[in-house]
Amino acid sequence: MVSQLSTMTGEALDRLHAKANADYAAFKERGLKLNLTRGKPSAAQLDLSNELLSLPGGSDYLSGAIDCRNYGDMAGLPDLRALLAPVFGLTADRVLLGNNASLSLMHDAVVFALLRGTSDSPRPWSKESRVAFLCPVPGYDRHFAICQDFGIQMISVPLTDQGPDMDVVEALVAEDAGIKGMWCVPKYSNPTGTVYSDETVDRLARMRTAAPDFRLFWDNAYAVHHLTADRVEISNIDMLCTQHGHANRPFIFGSTSKITFAGAGVGIFGGSAANVAWYAKHMSTQTIGGDKVNQLRHLRLLKTTTGVYDLMERHRSILAPKFDTVLQVFADRLGALGVATWTKPQGGYFITLDVPDGCAKATVRLAKEAGLELTPAGATHPYGSDPNDRTIRIAPSFPPLSEVAHAAEGVACSVLLAATEACARV
Amino acid sequence: MVSQLSTMTGEALDRLHAKANADYAAFKERGLKLNLTRGKPSAAQLDLSNELLSLPGGSDYLSGAIDCRNYGDMAGLPDLRALLAPVFGLTADRVLLGNNASLSLMHDAVVFALLRGTSDSPRPWSKESRVAFLCPVPGYDRHFAICQDFGIQMISVPLTDQGPDMDVVEALVAEDAGIKGMWCVPKYSNPTGTVYSDETVDRLARMRTAAPDFRLFWDNAYAVHHLTADRVEISNIDMLCTQHGHANRPFIFGSTSKITFAGAGVGIFGGSAANVAWYAKHMSTQTIGGDKVNQLRHLRLLKTTTGVYDLMERHRSILAPKFDTVLQVFADRLGALGVATWTKPQGGYFITLDVPDGCAKATVRLAKEAGLELTPAGATHPYGSDPNDRTIRIAPSFPPLSEVAHAAEGVACSVLLAATEACARV
Repeated sequence: MVSQLSTMTGEALDRLHAKANADYAAFKERGLKLNLTRGKPSAAQLDLSNELLSLPGGSDYLSGAIDCRNYGDMAGLPDLRALLAPVFGLTADRVLLGNNASLSLMHDAVVFALLRGTSDSPRPWSKESRVAFLCPVPGYDRHFAICQDFGIQMISVPLTDQGPDMDVVEALVAEDAGIKGMWCVPKYSNPTGTVYSDETVDRLARMRTAAPDFRLFWDNAYAVHHLTADRVEISNIDMLCTQHGHANRPFIFGSTSKITFAGAGVGIFGGSAANVAWYAKHMSTQTIGGDKVNQLRHLRLLKTTTGVYDLMERHRSILAPKFDTVLQVFADRLGALGVATWTKPQGGYFITLDVPDGCAKATVRLAKEAGLELTPAGATHPYGSDPNDRTIRIAPSFPPLSEVAHAAEGVACSVLLAATEACARV
Repeated sequence: MVSQLSTMTGEALDRLHAKANADYAAFKERGLKLNLTRGKPSAAQLDLSNELLSLPGGSDYLSGAIDCRNYGDMAGLPDLRALLAPVFGLTADRVLLGNNASLSLMHDAVVFALLRGTSDSPRPWSKESRVAFLCPVPGYDRHFAICQDFGIQMISVPLTDQGPDMDVVEALVAEDAGIKGMWCVPKYSNPTGTVYSDETVDRLARMRTAAPDFRLFWDNAYAVHHLTADRVEISNIDMLCTQHGHANRPFIFGSTSKITFAGAGVGIFGGSAANVAWYAKHMSTQTIGGDKVNQLRHLRLLKTTTGVYDLMERHRSILAPKFDTVLQVFADRLGALGVATWTKPQGGYFITLDVPDGCAKATVRLAKEAGLELTPAGATHPYGSDPNDRTIRIAPSFPPLSEVAHAAEGVACSVLLAATEACARV
């Protein structure tokens, strides 16, 4: 953003800078230790699933005829697949259950495509002269890290409030056969909270791609993670791709990590029958199957698909006040000054804060010096590099509510000081 | 092996064939459904760890200051690393905990080496014109499947009763820079039960390799899986490689799969500091960490390293009688006839049965037709192809003891019929 400070008189700016300095010093003086870095659930949220700590219990280890303790049944327990599939717009026969991290499923899908090719690939991606992914920005740093680790070129695409800028996307994928994939967090996107519009999803499903084996990496991480009573629904990518003759286009990922236990949930991969058979084939070289006792635990805890939705309501009651608090502090402290804009997400785990160009790193540094850890500036962009040094990801979920207000004030103080110092330098 | 049947008179052979036919028909008539295919623990063995089904219990989710339910602490709980590391001859600072399958850790180590190279590689293995692994045979089909899936050439090496034939191994690795790895199950090897001698381990640690980034894939799957009171120890590959100036040579793998729950245990990777840092770097792109609640469960169940050894004694009391039964039936039914030889393992999960050349597939087919599933002939060799059609893997662990004798009799009947029919054809 362009700061409104640039239109201020020198005297007004000096006054604002002096006040920012004083407020920041006062905040720092309090010696708080605060952390808004990562999208971790709070202890109170994890407590909601503490039954998992003693489930399945006793000598309950059978799911149908399956002894969950033993090897086998690689695709995962049929009953849990049936319970979770609808959450991601799929059916039980077209999902596989992984272990505790959908990130691993995404990473491994990239690995299998690199080393063996997808079911539609003329050759393994690693045998291509070049492999590129489209990366809507701001986006998720762990997606970008997978590309960076494997030397996959990242091409940034602007994220609008309807999702990725589809004019840009369509033009790129139609021309460039090296573009093999695209990262998408279609609902309550990390870190902006963006919800892909029906038109965006339809255009993603319909668009012509130069690569015959182009894949949408559809990370529906926040499928049921609402912050308001409005349970936002997005279009079904699986159905639309099939309708448009591109059934194999989406690799669909989800997990219970932010439903039950962040580090001990169940990941899910799904898509077309061909994609699922492809993933299963390579997975069968990697493992005899996921942890079925943990799958049984989840079955016993959640009981039904409705059980998932009910549990998410309880998460909302803990999370929504934290988001409201941050938004209120930002409005109170920054709203009238034109030095920042921020998203007001209806779900997910993040708020994106845009500060004046060139001020994001300085803001994060000042916050850190005052005892407040923020996600590193640049993490929201490929290669950790935000060309405008503008975007900061705010993650209010982990600290208790009592600390969130302090942390948001710390952010506001740091933004104001960084912005007024930047203008002072101009 | 060469059958002694070939020295029999025609009449004696006819009598034996007639008896084999009658015994086989009688076995088939019983209409049993038996399975000796895979090295799965029995329900009685799994019952030994049923406490896991309700552990950690209550609101027990802390290990030190770590909330096991949340993200983070990628290397795994320090207390469980300290508990398990000595089982594999390592220290807590040089092991990482994975999820439920050490097979995944092996697969992923191969993947990371292919796509990124090891810490000693001049380039990623996938950029080499050729990558080959040494495969002691008979060996483990899932090791071979990893090579086959990724186009890694497999070079068979004979397994002696001291381990791989080291004259062959040393000559190959000294000359051929394309040999990047070697599969080793150094104790109670799958499927022969072979224990690598001290000299073998020392020569593996000491040998000169043409490839600067050669790795031993040291799958110590049966480290504590004794079948006798003699707890066989092997030399410490980590210490020996370090002594000989090849600290990075071994990638060491283990798991609790056949200690606690086969499908819900904890895998472990270890080795030199450089290897562990290398694995951790790539693992950090793949996951935020393994399932720490399951790690905590294991900590609460096993309590100490001694707890592992005690639990294994209880497994032995269930497993050893099954092995004894098979060996007794084989001795009674096949011992005097010179139509088969078999290993008498002191640990592990398998007996290797060698039948007359050209008779393994026929034996497995006959067994199947009589209701007894055996591991497919050839599975013990790279590419599923046993050039002598001789070797059959017998896995007595899964059926209850009462069925094991029937199954062993079914094996004996099928061997005899296959062998006498083969001789009749000659």
